[in-house]
Amino acid sequence: MKAETIKLIKGDDLHCHLRRGKILESVAIFTARQFKRATIMPNTNPPILTAEDVIKYRHEIYECCWDDGWKEFEPLMTIQINDYTTPKMITQAKRAGVIAGKVYPQGVTTNSQNGVTNFGALYPVFREMQNLNMLLLLHGESPKPGVFCLDREEKFFSTLVAIAEEFPKLKIVLEHITTGKAVQVVSMLKNVAATITVHHLLLTLDDIVGGFISPHNFCKPIAKRPEDKKVLLMAATSGNPKFFYGGDSAPHLKENKECRQGCAGVFNAPVALPLLAQIFEECNKLDRLENFVSKFGADFYGLPRNSETIELIKKDWVVPDEYDGIVPFIAGQTLHWQIAS
Amino acid sequence: MKAETIKLIKGDDLHCHLRRGKILESVAIFTARQFKRATIMPNTNPPILTAEDVIKYRHEIYECCWDDGWKEFEPLMTIQINDYTTPKMITQAKRAGVIAGKVYPQGVTTNSQNGVTNFGALYPVFREMQNLNMLLLLHGESPKPGVFCLDREEKFFSTLVAIAEEFPKLKIVLEHITTGKAVQVVSMLKNVAATITVHHLLLTLDDIVGGFISPHNFCKPIAKRPEDKKVLLMAATSGNPKFFYGGDSAPHLKENKECRQGCAGVFNAPVALPLLAQIFEECNKLDRLENFVSKFGADFYGLPRNSETIELIKKDWVVPDEYDGIVPFIAGQTLHWQIAS
Repeated sequence: MKAETIKLIKGDDLHCHLRRGKILESVAIFTARQFKRATIMPNTNPPILTAEDVIKYRHEIYECCWDDGWKEFEPLMTIQINDYTTPKMITQAKRAGVIAGKVYPQGVTTNSQNGVTNFGALYPVFREMQNLNMLLLLHGESPKPGVFCLDREEKFFSTLVAIAEEFPKLKIVLEHITTGKAVQVVSMLKNVAATITVHHLLLTLDDIVGGFISPHNFCKPIAKRPEDKKVLLMAATSGNPKFFYGGDSAPHLKENKECRQGCAGVFNAPVALPLLAQIFEECNKLDRLENFVSKFGADFYGLPRNSETIELIKKDWVVPDEYDGIVPFIAGQTLHWQIAS
Repeated sequence: MKAETIKLIKGDDLHCHLRRGKILESVAIFTARQFKRATIMPNTNPPILTAEDVIKYRHEIYECCWDDGWKEFEPLMTIQINDYTTPKMITQAKRAGVIAGKVYPQGVTTNSQNGVTNFGALYPVFREMQNLNMLLLLHGESPKPGVFCLDREEKFFSTLVAIAEEFPKLKIVLEHITTGKAVQVVSMLKNVAATITVHHLLLTLDDIVGGFISPHNFCKPIAKRPEDKKVLLMAATSGNPKFFYGGDSAPHLKENKECRQGCAGVFNAPVALPLLAQIFEECNKLDRLENFVSKFGADFYGLPRNSETIELIKKDWVVPDEYDGIVPFIAGQTLHWQIAS
């Protein structure tokens, strides 16, 4: 007989876009409700580049969560590393409580126009991060013009391997991996781990352009082939501590998705944990959900595991069509698990 | 010095969706202006299944073109072949002037819910078509559930080869091919030719989901890899008479493209011939455009080549954002050629 409730250590979403302003106010509550901590992406508009930016942005996030009664939520702050980042800025960021630096190769996704063009030139920055035990989070796609969308992750591996070997004590996370090959590469590199999103455990390219064209399933890196999804599912449920949850929830207003040129990003925060439970249950690996969501990420980050717990109950609910003008992932579909209120 | 005008035999668009009702009224003029003849797809709503349907639909098309002053335009009528088509219906269709039967495997594109599930059961129909010298037009994608979108064309080849070998005198057109492998397969089969659209000479998957998500570049079969596009360009400009123009212009109202689940289809009719001229010129093969558009298709169909001519002049124009609520292909972009008025 299947369990009707599950109790987990409250987990960490180690890759999350909360945005700023009105969208932040709409979305923060979903993450705070389901996760004790979340790694907050810095590619906001304007971006989070310095210690000063972090202090301001963290305050905005706290204000939002406190207003909603989620005082215990802990945003893990990051800065965006670009061509103008200096080792001194890393030192300052560390003092301001920044846990990680995020690198976007130039132009690979939303708000990455200011991204990195020359990884080699950033080695002094990476060295300082290694010294200060700050994590390096990588959007792992090649920014080279003309690289075909389905090949971009693979074409980034040489850069990843070079950094990982040059800085053997730098903790590196290859974010939101989408291919079987990424699972292989991450498995082989001692100081590298990877986040996996919930939508990449569910989608393939078929769910974006295989039937109708579905902008709300569209993200970067784009979901790949069925074989890739299978390997991602295996990695997530394997018990290998190199693979843990980072949702990459990335809200965009509906009008910026359902239009001539729609933005990349899947807003999965409202459904994350219930959907993960459903997926792990379908794989007969529900007992490994806590590893993936609540233990492995904290361990790799070097953070204490959380002490709070969260309960899920098995009770159907239909995912709403939108929240404040933002269409959530699997809108209109029925989920079998929900957070116990 | 480059030519500032080109004069061609007025060509044939051997794959065209004109729809019915209001959309027909909006779009027919673009095809009639640029082409002497067009093969009219039968997957309208309701579909064109019988001689009777054809007579009615042809009348609607003529009315539309005549109203707009395009009295010389000649629609080449087709019926949709589905599981309920009989040899007798073929005989009747032939008498009504139908030139071809179009097969959609079930569910592969817009209005194909009623498509074919069992090709073997249709062999008596194909035999009658062979006897009556009626062409068989194939949407070449496997309808099997679970076949990955980028593999669907390739997975159809075994069906194509079986039909081509069973009916060696049946003229078969593999429509809107999208892969290098399709070029190879068509090249090897004596009684098979292929249409190539103008958008598949320009797009890859990158133009649909490589940057933003672009519903107006989304069609079935979906545009594939850069290597595939390169082979399609070679085939179209090669002078091989097996490859000729079929635009697959497929208009949808903007609200059915820019939405949660957008329809497949590129509305290229307003830009077809100028864009083809531009592409052939960029390949230094402008002298082969007439083969592709005005000769090879007619020859394969067994129709006389047209005697009218059409002139293009080199003069920039910006493609409008929409026509009657339908967004055309490359809307907002500048084209260097235009039809001489």
